[in-house]
Amino acid sequence: MKALVYQGPGKKALEDRPIPEVKAPTDAVVKIVKTTICGTDLHILKGDVPTCSPGRILGHEGVGMVEKTGPGVTAFRPGDRVLISCISACGKCEYCRRGMYSHCTTGGWILGNEIDGTQAEYVRIPHADTSLYPIPAGADEEALVMLSDILPTGFECGVLNGRVEPGSTVAIVGGGPIGLAALLTAQFYSPAEIIMIDLDDNRLQMAKRFGATATVNAAGGEAAETVMKMTGGRGVDTAIEAVGVPASFVTCEDIVAPGGTIANVGVHGAKVDLHLERLWSRNITITTRLVDTVTTPMLLKTVQSRKIDPKQLITHRFKLDQILDAYDTFGRAASTHALKVIVEA
Amino acid sequence: MKALVYQGPGKKALEDRPIPEVKAPTDAVVKIVKTTICGTDLHILKGDVPTCSPGRILGHEGVGMVEKTGPGVTAFRPGDRVLISCISACGKCEYCRRGMYSHCTTGGWILGNEIDGTQAEYVRIPHADTSLYPIPAGADEEALVMLSDILPTGFECGVLNGRVEPGSTVAIVGGGPIGLAALLTAQFYSPAEIIMIDLDDNRLQMAKRFGATATVNAAGGEAAETVMKMTGGRGVDTAIEAVGVPASFVTCEDIVAPGGTIANVGVHGAKVDLHLERLWSRNITITTRLVDTVTTPMLLKTVQSRKIDPKQLITHRFKLDQILDAYDTFGRAASTHALKVIVEA
Repeated sequence: MKALVYQGPGKKALEDRPIPEVKAPTDAVVKIVKTTICGTDLHILKGDVPTCSPGRILGHEGVGMVEKTGPGVTAFRPGDRVLISCISACGKCEYCRRGMYSHCTTGGWILGNEIDGTQAEYVRIPHADTSLYPIPAGADEEALVMLSDILPTGFECGVLNGRVEPGSTVAIVGGGPIGLAALLTAQFYSPAEIIMIDLDDNRLQMAKRFGATATVNAAGGEAAETVMKMTGGRGVDTAIEAVGVPASFVTCEDIVAPGGTIANVGVHGAKVDLHLERLWSRNITITTRLVDTVTTPMLLKTVQSRKIDPKQLITHRFKLDQILDAYDTFGRAASTHALKVIVEA
Repeated sequence: MKALVYQGPGKKALEDRPIPEVKAPTDAVVKIVKTTICGTDLHILKGDVPTCSPGRILGHEGVGMVEKTGPGVTAFRPGDRVLISCISACGKCEYCRRGMYSHCTTGGWILGNEIDGTQAEYVRIPHADTSLYPIPAGADEEALVMLSDILPTGFECGVLNGRVEPGSTVAIVGGGPIGLAALLTAQFYSPAEIIMIDLDDNRLQMAKRFGATATVNAAGGEAAETVMKMTGGRGVDTAIEAVGVPASFVTCEDIVAPGGTIANVGVHGAKVDLHLERLWSRNITITTRLVDTVTTPMLLKTVQSRKIDPKQLITHRFKLDQILDAYDTFGRAASTHALKVIVEA
């Protein structure tokens, strides 16, 4: 089968690989129908993710059809259409039983990281019963690819951890796909204001269409001052960091109101300065989270009932044998205006 | 009257000052019976607290008797015995109405900071109705001095923000009065383990008597490794920072378990390194808080019902005209073994 393989920092190739087999009784092999590329894949290619070794098939998102199942799989059978979660979870360990699937002792975010991923014709999914979701009949499968990772990530790590509530003021630093996923799902809770901060005017325009009440271009280096002026010197109740670099985290520190929350979503490759000399007395909360995908069933319902339309995030479509072009388009988002690219296997 | 006055970094003196007057209708003037010295006063003397100007009478803790009240004060009258909260709160602004008294727009922590404090014979208390607490008949007033600041601070900023719960594992970094207040009040919630970390063996022994299940001397620089070993490599559910220096905060980052909380209590004078390159995916929460004293009435009941005995924290007693000796004893805690010193006016 064809597969996109990480070959070490800065290097990737479309290779021929054997079709994966069921290895454990709880495995399923899934034939990929559609997959996508995540900002995290670019972090891997930058060398930011030491757990991902050269030779790894990338990708942790997708929809597909169950091809084979091990004898321990009881919730799915061959032919079932499935949504693949970016998080594999045994459902049995202490973390899983607390609903913290991201830290499953034999799972977590392993797909396209510690085991081969979804940017291929087939993928082996461990703990299939608790790592796949059935796709409702008649669902738009392309839209559901957004539920493998970015929608639950924006929602759980940004909106839920950020405690967005009716009437509150929210700022999202970073208008990429994850920031836009947070923007879409923040609106479930009717905040008064959602301010999107980014360096790119195209993304800010997109954010306006997605429901941002205001936008701030951070290129001038005065994003924090602007947000403080917009909020009457008070700051925001929720600051969502959706970039993963020190400067954007510090912007969140600068704009969070007393009693507010900084919800980190970004994948960071370096430490950041935490200004406790200012923040120790400000009654703030900072959260980090790798998505647990506990809200995937709920998000499925919001898509099915048209409360949100994640298809808006899809800007480009490619075939699997064009995946290097897909990476190129996704990687040059500032000029291509790419958000999520669909790759059809 | 006699008063202990801050004269700029490193300088203080016992001066003669006029007895304060009622200035606003909601003021009370309180005759101090007993006060104490806080670690925060030492931070002021180090020059860490820029809001406190030279000439300020220090002190934000104490019990006393109401001497005079303005016409707007309805909950207290002259002769009432009162506990003085370190936080002054109008009860009317947006922050107060959310229970975030620490950020009252005309109050907060102003006593012995932005207005004259309690290390004197008399003090003016603004917003008296909502900044004083009546002392129950028969209460031990000396014990209640611990409720002006350190017990609610250890409890609210450490234990409540740290989400201590039955069966959980707690580490407290810093066995000074605030760390011991957190240790005492953490036991309300029946955690499985409370590990105290300090540089001073005397304080660690004290912590054992106060209920710590284990102690770690951090002098060797391997406190984090030791705690990780003690917890089977997992770390602690709650790490309470009760020092206020970068090294102790980083220790908390090193020992917090996935899904755990770092509750900062310390007053910080410098930024700290936040290792988001490790922590972004660990589903942790970091909180900061200036005490709101919302739990003071509850803590009063726990003292009255002997659930805790805050008098254990008192090691030395002085008269007001010996307050410079009291500062000396408190400031050399490592050799004097001082925890809280009572100063009688």
